[in-house]
Amino acid sequence: MSGSKINPDHWFIEVHEEAKVLAGFEIEGKALYSKPSDFQKVEIYQTKNHGKLLAHDDKIMVTEKDEFVYHDMIVHVPMFTHPKPKHVLVIGGGDGGTVREVLRHPSVETCTMVEIDGDVVEACKEWIPKTSSELTNPKVSLKIQDGVEFVKNSQQKFDVILVDSSDPIGPATPLFNVDFYKDINKILSDDGIVVSQAESPFYEMNMQKALVKIKAQVFDKLHLYNYINMSYPGCLWSFSFASRGLCPFKDFDPGRVTGEFQYYNPQIHWGAFMLPEFQKKAHGDALTPTPTPFWK
Amino acid sequence: MSGSKINPDHWFIEVHEEAKVLAGFEIEGKALYSKPSDFQKVEIYQTKNHGKLLAHDDKIMVTEKDEFVYHDMIVHVPMFTHPKPKHVLVIGGGDGGTVREVLRHPSVETCTMVEIDGDVVEACKEWIPKTSSELTNPKVSLKIQDGVEFVKNSQQKFDVILVDSSDPIGPATPLFNVDFYKDINKILSDDGIVVSQAESPFYEMNMQKALVKIKAQVFDKLHLYNYINMSYPGCLWSFSFASRGLCPFKDFDPGRVTGEFQYYNPQIHWGAFMLPEFQKKAHGDALTPTPTPFWK
Repeated sequence: MSGSKINPDHWFIEVHEEAKVLAGFEIEGKALYSKPSDFQKVEIYQTKNHGKLLAHDDKIMVTEKDEFVYHDMIVHVPMFTHPKPKHVLVIGGGDGGTVREVLRHPSVETCTMVEIDGDVVEACKEWIPKTSSELTNPKVSLKIQDGVEFVKNSQQKFDVILVDSSDPIGPATPLFNVDFYKDINKILSDDGIVVSQAESPFYEMNMQKALVKIKAQVFDKLHLYNYINMSYPGCLWSFSFASRGLCPFKDFDPGRVTGEFQYYNPQIHWGAFMLPEFQKKAHGDALTPTPTPFWK
Repeated sequence: MSGSKINPDHWFIEVHEEAKVLAGFEIEGKALYSKPSDFQKVEIYQTKNHGKLLAHDDKIMVTEKDEFVYHDMIVHVPMFTHPKPKHVLVIGGGDGGTVREVLRHPSVETCTMVEIDGDVVEACKEWIPKTSSELTNPKVSLKIQDGVEFVKNSQQKFDVILVDSSDPIGPATPLFNVDFYKDINKILSDDGIVVSQAESPFYEMNMQKALVKIKAQVFDKLHLYNYINMSYPGCLWSFSFASRGLCPFKDFDPGRVTGEFQYYNPQIHWGAFMLPEFQKKAHGDALTPTPTPFWK
């Protein structure tokens, strides 16, 4: 081994096979929870400095220390762009962090969460209350079922739909599909917004391009916005923001932002849509252009 | 070991001792270059997917695949804010990537680089031409000496000064000092800009706060701006932007941006100054407020 010397037994290590990089978190002893669910191996570890760590099939999904970045950004960017989101749908998001942030918006009347893997929800309810704490809130309707089937059959309309999925391998594969987004479009209210986990421009550009291409076929407006993920390889990760008309710049009123957040604020809302040149170029005309800011 | 199984012999691994996280790059065989210099252990490896990797004392300094992010952002943000930078000083930056990007600005007449460790420069000239290619450009004056002594004694004035240093441990320690910045201020032209590597808000907030406090004592205007570093722990890293008056928003004319960059563009220039809430709060009044954009 070159560089630092480690005892591999004390680490949870995730290798990105294609990028040939790895990331690791020092852990205390063995898994707190480890179970093969119907879909994947679900594990929870106690890390030494990042709180609990949730992994599916050896891929890190969330650590308690930095989950605020992901959950702030998937939720508050669309929820503060929409003038009054009442009905919210979360596809995936088994750890519960997305629902927790959705419920911080007082306009919300119902939050429906559809997670395919009930074991993930149960594991997080037992071991990661930090993210799962609001899953028993009376505004939440938790459905353990296939998100693809749910959106195909739902009669309800939603103001904001959040596709909080893992990568398109394993149970999340059918969520990276044009038919899924056509069905989503049917249950979206007229001024609705759809945000999806959109992979990393560094190591997962092919997946990001595929998702952008799919969503561009269905929605009038499509943006990407970026955030930092210390637990996912490549650091820079994206969400896609699709709508029939609402614009995350011109329709976003920073005066509506209330509450205290660790990561989100109006400035990061704007800044997140400012893409690096290689990412902008990779998507070409598929993305709605980001307007030019002016400074008072 | 939990998570992925690896053969540690095939990896260069950097552990962040306090954060209890690690990052690794798969390497081909042994070091291409390994030498204890007068200041530190200098090593270069061939990675499997990130090109060459330069490490000082087992800490990754640069990899060829992602160096464009760091070098675009330390250089082009101040160089495109300044209306006509002619004389540029680089403190540190032994790999040469910063000088390479400085020289892409046609207004530059001289670029002085002061690096304390001549072995780093020689190693990079031999093994990493991608970053070191412009060190022999006739506009470049390369001085192997202590940057602290250089700025104390220099009689020349500079339009842009870039402190391209490693962390304040080892040879870079004296660069995190108020006297160093007072000396820098004396050799700064009236509309000059000083940008420094400013650590990470996630794992290195104490160092970032110390640097901000130091620079706030010396300069009228002080901002932080962020970028992504896949090779440094914590992903989100910062530069500090100090000036006597020039503002990176109001004095930045995107029409002046010419050239093709992989990371930098006018939008990322603006977006980089949009700080997450926890980082903004940590520095309080020490930073000049970021103005509010409006959208046409």
